[in-house]
Amino acid sequence: MPAPATPPVLALTLGDPVGIGPEITVRTLAEYADDETHHGVAVGDAVAVRRAVAATGLDLEVREVSGFDTAPAGAGVIDVLDIGVLEGKELAWGEVDATAGRSAVTAIEVATRAAMAGTVDGVVTGPINKEAIWASGSEHLGHTEMLGELTGVTQQDTMFVVASRHAPDHRLQIFFATRHVSLRTALDQLTRERQVDSIRRALQALEVYGVAEPTLAVAAINPHGGENGAFGTEELDEVVPACEQLRREGLPVHGPIPADSVFHQGLAGRFDGVLSQYHDQGHIAAKTYDFDGTISVTVGLPILRTSVDHGTAFDIAGSGRADHATMRSAYLAAVEYAPFVPRMRSAYGS
Amino acid sequence: MPAPATPPVLALTLGDPVGIGPEITVRTLAEYADDETHHGVAVGDAVAVRRAVAATGLDLEVREVSGFDTAPAGAGVIDVLDIGVLEGKELAWGEVDATAGRSAVTAIEVATRAAMAGTVDGVVTGPINKEAIWASGSEHLGHTEMLGELTGVTQQDTMFVVASRHAPDHRLQIFFATRHVSLRTALDQLTRERQVDSIRRALQALEVYGVAEPTLAVAAINPHGGENGAFGTEELDEVVPACEQLRREGLPVHGPIPADSVFHQGLAGRFDGVLSQYHDQGHIAAKTYDFDGTISVTVGLPILRTSVDHGTAFDIAGSGRADHATMRSAYLAAVEYAPFVPRMRSAYGS
Repeated sequence: MPAPATPPVLALTLGDPVGIGPEITVRTLAEYADDETHHGVAVGDAVAVRRAVAATGLDLEVREVSGFDTAPAGAGVIDVLDIGVLEGKELAWGEVDATAGRSAVTAIEVATRAAMAGTVDGVVTGPINKEAIWASGSEHLGHTEMLGELTGVTQQDTMFVVASRHAPDHRLQIFFATRHVSLRTALDQLTRERQVDSIRRALQALEVYGVAEPTLAVAAINPHGGENGAFGTEELDEVVPACEQLRREGLPVHGPIPADSVFHQGLAGRFDGVLSQYHDQGHIAAKTYDFDGTISVTVGLPILRTSVDHGTAFDIAGSGRADHATMRSAYLAAVEYAPFVPRMRSAYGS
Repeated sequence: MPAPATPPVLALTLGDPVGIGPEITVRTLAEYADDETHHGVAVGDAVAVRRAVAATGLDLEVREVSGFDTAPAGAGVIDVLDIGVLEGKELAWGEVDATAGRSAVTAIEVATRAAMAGTVDGVVTGPINKEAIWASGSEHLGHTEMLGELTGVTQQDTMFVVASRHAPDHRLQIFFATRHVSLRTALDQLTRERQVDSIRRALQALEVYGVAEPTLAVAAINPHGGENGAFGTEELDEVVPACEQLRREGLPVHGPIPADSVFHQGLAGRFDGVLSQYHDQGHIAAKTYDFDGTISVTVGLPILRTSVDHGTAFDIAGSGRADHATMRSAYLAAVEYAPFVPRMRSAYGS
């Protein structure tokens, strides 16, 4: 992995300020405040950061910075770029609020524009609440739509990253051939053409995100991979022809491999990526294997964006009990992927 | 858990004698030969056991016993009940063979009859090869059909058992509402009636297998549990009504819970069992979490039967390289479930 010229700077959006986002952001920044090899800056309302520090009980100084080029102050000091949406107001923890929604949206806009302008190396997003987003007057469904509009990108893919316990330094990247649709609809969508397109995009993503000579395994759809048509014909009709077509082109594609072994094999180090056919396939594998360590990378953007894959946890917001394990993983993944931002720009930029 | 009156005796069938079954059986028996709290006896051809000992390179004495009531000889000595099918012949490792198939079938028959007669507390089955079974003249599709015929049982369920890394002494039991059918067929089969029946049987199984006051969570079918019908209607139409009906009856049923968190929650200790809706759902969860530690228990039989959930691995049979981790887990699970054999007999006997 090439060493970055300067320590990467990451923008961490607080997410909904009345959810757990500020707390997990604060804990993550505090943990690495004395690490000079990378620099995280919270983007959001400074008042929300201060309140989160109080909620966690950590002994921290909150420094307001006006840009992302200020050198880190060291242990005990965390930086925030204040967006001033809340105007100093303290909102109730864990209640859907239009101003909170506007704060979350603004933070994403500020951080994404900074990444597009190159003043930060990447964006790590905290969890947002859709109802609050809508209450704020935004018509966006979530991060995906906002990021698409801000970057001018129309096709985004989710890449899960899971660190292996079996193979040292090995990470498995999981891609998805279908997304948020019913299982029946997913089965209808899983044509040969879609397989081919998904495999190509997954292999490209592995290269863009720094995997040298990547290999990809394709999960089967039916139990035992369909057992030669006895348990379903999707493999024979769609998946096998797609894999064989791409292998004839010389692409490093394996499978289809039964879904109950392909993720294990991938985590054991046999593959860099696995193409999951439907939402739950890859989600079950990643989250059962490492619930807190599974992070999400948005592929297809000309910028680097990682995120937690959990929600705002309104029920415990403000209690100081929120676990920042996933936020930390998302932050550290962004640090590691930062050297490949030029590749993202070149592969996915307009 | 009640202490058994006498140390439990388990019959370990070798499986196909030219597969890895004999090697993993020998390694498992050797590991516990000096443990006086339980006694494993290999059931199969003694010649296959001796050859497996040689393949593993272990320094072991193979003792032929004529029944299951012989006291264990201690460290360095493993016991086999010889079935004499191979007549001393040494078959080629890893090649489908009719005599090997007959040896595998006979071992299952001998062990199952011993369990029915109560001379062993349970059966732990090694992996068999279907082609060899058919070549031997048997028309059985596998263990399920043989066990059904030998015990007179028509409905058997698979229960996966996975030991948690998160919660000490906690094991998650996974059940399946549908089995070896295509994913499309599974979706068609997952009616409300089937949910109700599967949940009842799973709760009964948890009680029979010794879980005090068991709780069961039901996995959702669609991503995010269908998100109120946006990603599929099976939850609203079938799963929710089934769960609510049983909750009204006072049964400890939770869910439906999205499949990408229900197994994690179960392993974290929140539930004793999870009902998987389709084959791969529970298989992906269990095998990605702990590939070698996932074992299978056949529920619905009046006898105790555990098994490995892997194949004969003909490619490495005879090399001594086979890992016996799953066989060991299956054996130790049988030891733990042995005190509950009277419950199995009472619940599932005719």
